[in-house]
Amino acid sequence: MISSFHPPQRTLLGPGPSDVSPRVLAAMARPTIGHLDPEFIRMMDETRVLIQRTFRTTNELTLPISAPGSAGMEACFSNLIEAGDTVVVCINGVFGNRMVENVERMGATAVKVEDEWGTPIDPDKLRTALGQHPETKIVAMVHAETSTGVRSDVEALAAIAREHDCLTIVDAVTSFGGIELDVDGWGLDAVYSGSQKCLSCAPGLSPVTFGPRAVEVIKNRTTKSQSWFLDLNLVMGYWGDGSGGGRSYHHTAPINSLYGLHESLVILHEEGLDNAITRHYRNHLALRTGLEAIGLSLLVDEQYRLPQLNTVVIPDGADDALIRRRLLEDHNVEIGAGLGALGGKVWRVGLMGHGSNPTNVYRCLGCLEGLLGESGSVAAARASYD
Amino acid sequence: MISSFHPPQRTLLGPGPSDVSPRVLAAMARPTIGHLDPEFIRMMDETRVLIQRTFRTTNELTLPISAPGSAGMEACFSNLIEAGDTVVVCINGVFGNRMVENVERMGATAVKVEDEWGTPIDPDKLRTALGQHPETKIVAMVHAETSTGVRSDVEALAAIAREHDCLTIVDAVTSFGGIELDVDGWGLDAVYSGSQKCLSCAPGLSPVTFGPRAVEVIKNRTTKSQSWFLDLNLVMGYWGDGSGGGRSYHHTAPINSLYGLHESLVILHEEGLDNAITRHYRNHLALRTGLEAIGLSLLVDEQYRLPQLNTVVIPDGADDALIRRRLLEDHNVEIGAGLGALGGKVWRVGLMGHGSNPTNVYRCLGCLEGLLGESGSVAAARASYD
Repeated sequence: MISSFHPPQRTLLGPGPSDVSPRVLAAMARPTIGHLDPEFIRMMDETRVLIQRTFRTTNELTLPISAPGSAGMEACFSNLIEAGDTVVVCINGVFGNRMVENVERMGATAVKVEDEWGTPIDPDKLRTALGQHPETKIVAMVHAETSTGVRSDVEALAAIAREHDCLTIVDAVTSFGGIELDVDGWGLDAVYSGSQKCLSCAPGLSPVTFGPRAVEVIKNRTTKSQSWFLDLNLVMGYWGDGSGGGRSYHHTAPINSLYGLHESLVILHEEGLDNAITRHYRNHLALRTGLEAIGLSLLVDEQYRLPQLNTVVIPDGADDALIRRRLLEDHNVEIGAGLGALGGKVWRVGLMGHGSNPTNVYRCLGCLEGLLGESGSVAAARASYD
Repeated sequence: MISSFHPPQRTLLGPGPSDVSPRVLAAMARPTIGHLDPEFIRMMDETRVLIQRTFRTTNELTLPISAPGSAGMEACFSNLIEAGDTVVVCINGVFGNRMVENVERMGATAVKVEDEWGTPIDPDKLRTALGQHPETKIVAMVHAETSTGVRSDVEALAAIAREHDCLTIVDAVTSFGGIELDVDGWGLDAVYSGSQKCLSCAPGLSPVTFGPRAVEVIKNRTTKSQSWFLDLNLVMGYWGDGSGGGRSYHHTAPINSLYGLHESLVILHEEGLDNAITRHYRNHLALRTGLEAIGLSLLVDEQYRLPQLNTVVIPDGADDALIRRRLLEDHNVEIGAGLGALGGKVWRVGLMGHGSNPTNVYRCLGCLEGLLGESGSVAAARASYD
């Protein structure tokens, strides 16, 4: 006999999902209504506006894909790419490699611009690659690499792409709502994000936005996109063009998850996007100060660090798996393991959205202090707030 | 300023989403934990067992796709089909046509076996088509056509497919948990369903199952499937093989939605699958009796009717849109409009999952009585329960 599941109360300080706000949890438990109900459509329109504000864009084609960030990525690639296209993919972590998988499965050619894990994409390398591949249609890049904690300079990379008449696809899953991201100001063409990072919403949705150049490409495809589910020419019919006009059924929207997304965006804009970005940065500084006080260091050079995802070098002699297990079992704190080449070498400590607060900074530091047998981290962090 | 969204309390008697059980709503509001948390993995294992029981299968490759039923459809087609394959698609409504879209986007050839909307698929037509197309690899069919309220004889159709050495893909979105569906007994190879119909769970997840023949095809593909997000060779690495062994990260699972799915399946099996199927049938009979008492008729011949989705012929002189709007605005009751060729000709009244109960039968009948100016439906329905 299998009975109801009651999860433990964790504090999620890993790479995501982040701690979900109690307001978002409450929103998801509100009564389900139909996906064509006028009240639901009103909420969809509001959600679009809130996503636009968070992306800093006026793009009409702005909506949440009804599936996780990986599907948001696929929505961008499958709608913009046709077989035979050339796509330059900037790779400095797991998610760049996933982009290559997308490109190749669509019968397109991926030209890789690679940098070391833990470093940002070098704009000069992109410039060189575009010089060597004038046939390039799209440049794809990750703003905030969740696998390494690195921020790349998307503004500069996008400017280079534009000089070469290329469209840009940008992974903003972990940057959305946590660091500066200016879709219109930077001239980005297609951007996808996720609900489960700096929005403090449950995982499962991927806000996306497409600029006018991208929409032109989508409307003028010579072949249908591979995916019916993600075909924006069809999805647009349901989400509408922003005019509040007619809606046609495409797929059944994940109603309650969308309640949660709406609430998370309301919370973000109550605080103010700029204030939220500042808060992420301040708590990052406090965490860093505390980590340094007990002799821990961050993998990434200061200027490229993501405040919402801190990649901590595991000190010599520390048992990676044991410490993560004791954090979880004894303290109900989850942090992330290193991925790929960084497995066993780093921990990934997320301070995202709702979870980016002094309580979590102290908690994380206190637990690490206790498990590593060092001391003084919390006092140092506290001093950094003063 | 956009503020929190508070949906009205509707009674959802359309084609889905159906009314979500309060227990499921409460489950979705439980604290989010990580997708690699041991407690979450334990819940995933339980969820797989519960889905297997509901499909009546022992298939190891049984899991919920992290997106709505349309993505579950696409998971079946994109994993089993390679470019150049021939697929016979049985069409008697909207969802058969969507299958054709899937097949064609994958570079395969769709051979259509068509029947009138409102009637089931004729097994003889399938036999003829397979005789004419011996190259056919897969036969695709819809068990319960949500657009028309028709049940096709999947057991018979699958037997014919097997005689011709074809695999089967079956759409069980609306049948899952509402009428008899016996994946192993009927020898079905790939079956997808949805959370938002007879499970009374929120929309957004698609339980799927793949039998050994389908798994062989997936493992022996000569090309990668088009979708990275839906590639079961990768998804299997996260959901595991049922042994409880290692898990690798694929995408971030929609944690809270999965809490809801788990709870909906627990509720279903507390009642018992057979009991739930009987309940759907009894409430359908009462609804039918009441509808007939006020002169309304069902579109579909009795032997092919879906108890969970009743296609009511709109009587002459009744204003389709007005009546649906007044049901919604005055009574908070949602019923479905006709789709495609049946637009303006039928209403679709769902009695699904939690929502299949005498209270909703009376409520729906009472409202229709009032709006149509007839009487006696509720008394007739009540008599049918005795």
